[in-house]
Amino acid sequence: MATDAISAVANPRRAEFRPGPNLEGLLIVSSPAERNAPRRSHGNRRGPPFQRRGEAPSDDWIWGWHAVEAALANPRRPKALRLLATPERARQVESRFGRQPALEMMDPQAIGHALPQGAVHQGVALRGEPPESTPLPGYVARPGAVLLMLDQVTDPQNVGAILRSAAAFGAVGVILQDRHAPKLSGVLAKAAAGAVDKVATSRVVNLSRALEELAGQGWRAVGLAGEGERSLDQALNEEPTVLVLGSEGEGIRRLVAEHCDELARIPMPGGFESLNVSAAAAVALYAATRPRT
Amino acid sequence: MATDAISAVANPRRAEFRPGPNLEGLLIVSSPAERNAPRRSHGNRRGPPFQRRGEAPSDDWIWGWHAVEAALANPRRPKALRLLATPERARQVESRFGRQPALEMMDPQAIGHALPQGAVHQGVALRGEPPESTPLPGYVARPGAVLLMLDQVTDPQNVGAILRSAAAFGAVGVILQDRHAPKLSGVLAKAAAGAVDKVATSRVVNLSRALEELAGQGWRAVGLAGEGERSLDQALNEEPTVLVLGSEGEGIRRLVAEHCDELARIPMPGGFESLNVSAAAAVALYAATRPRT
Repeated sequence: MATDAISAVANPRRAEFRPGPNLEGLLIVSSPAERNAPRRSHGNRRGPPFQRRGEAPSDDWIWGWHAVEAALANPRRPKALRLLATPERARQVESRFGRQPALEMMDPQAIGHALPQGAVHQGVALRGEPPESTPLPGYVARPGAVLLMLDQVTDPQNVGAILRSAAAFGAVGVILQDRHAPKLSGVLAKAAAGAVDKVATSRVVNLSRALEELAGQGWRAVGLAGEGERSLDQALNEEPTVLVLGSEGEGIRRLVAEHCDELARIPMPGGFESLNVSAAAAVALYAATRPRT
Repeated sequence: MATDAISAVANPRRAEFRPGPNLEGLLIVSSPAERNAPRRSHGNRRGPPFQRRGEAPSDDWIWGWHAVEAALANPRRPKALRLLATPERARQVESRFGRQPALEMMDPQAIGHALPQGAVHQGVALRGEPPESTPLPGYVARPGAVLLMLDQVTDPQNVGAILRSAAAFGAVGVILQDRHAPKLSGVLAKAAAGAVDKVATSRVVNLSRALEELAGQGWRAVGLAGEGERSLDQALNEEPTVLVLGSEGEGIRRLVAEHCDELARIPMPGGFESLNVSAAAAVALYAATRPRT
């Protein structure tokens, strides 16, 4: 923050240093020149005053009140590198979470400049490392516990919606393949509405090996597949369960499917066998967590 | 088609009239000049050769193979006004659906010019009126039948995903409020992956009145609401059921809720009471259509 303050003073375009009540030392980073500056039409539109040397690309940002609030409340997330907020949001953040060294006050337009075009940031954005990956032995195999594993699900909006459902239905964690899963930021974090910081996530190198490891810890794996013999309801029981979902086009890969104890299908009486992967995940989570009657 | 052919001949920019085997009379509408023309960066990027007088805005288009295939197969949809396809897709369309008077062959870039930026059209796009609205008495109140009603759900991607789930779970129809529902085209149709033409839809002026009318026809209405006393599983029975869903922020409006026979909640044991509306719809449809054990 010290260097920020210095560079702000040295840079005439980072103007309007206005410490307010309880907000001493915060910056209003917006000059009229910036507000009227033309916007580039594609991709990362960070204007020069916000572009820092070595700063990671814009997908390390999260934005929107739910997402940022959950990030600040999450002890498993490394400290924010930058935290942009309107004066009103800054007050809300500091009254809720105490003094934030990374906080920079800005007007909404200036925050928008740091983010991808069209990002609905609601006056707040945070840049930082995602929450730490949870090691698999961290998941306790209790009766009724549910883990979710995603095989090659790459659409950030879908993964975000799935994390949100996982948090809602109380899944203990979501396991992703390190190399094929999108970053837990950007539109993913926005779609997750805070769930990136509400549900544990694990990034593993090899999903089949992860299933082996989990089996050793007492987890039973049920893969969702149209060719499953039994329905989801029939296949589920009280044992700790890993629900495995594949991509919409390809489904679960063969080797991963072979590591499942059972493949089960979601009954689709409509004869239109085409469910969005995040809809399928919500249904599977509901089926696995609803009280059995 | 006759006038198209004439204007194509008269317009030197609509070049390369190449009738192929089984494709007589079709046009390849793409000149090198068009292919290299600069693209406008926002919104409707239809280039001059595709902009027709009085043509409706680009949200009357649907694109992508699943969506267009389902549209062509749907007898309840008025005839296509325009049908753009690559030569390969044109062959696929005509071998499947017979000769298409509206068909214009184009290269993929030219199709993209007719559509909103970033539209993943897979070589085919169709412009036309949406399927006809189904009158409410058209829904037969049989045991186990499920209707879905959306109250103020406006996000096209969500409504599209909900239609897709409705088709998958065999809902007999989806009821939308005429003035507050998005058009059944564009990104909605893309997200629906063909379901716009697989499931009946009704656009009504007043949802409360529609529920009254449906009640008179033997339908029971169950509204999804966090404050519902019973869970979805408890509230559902074998009677013909209208599932009513509200928007994520606001839920079901008071007057609509008062027209429900019961409000029910989706149990969310995670303590994170925030489910995307399309995830909630998928869960409700699954719960309402799964075989009761």
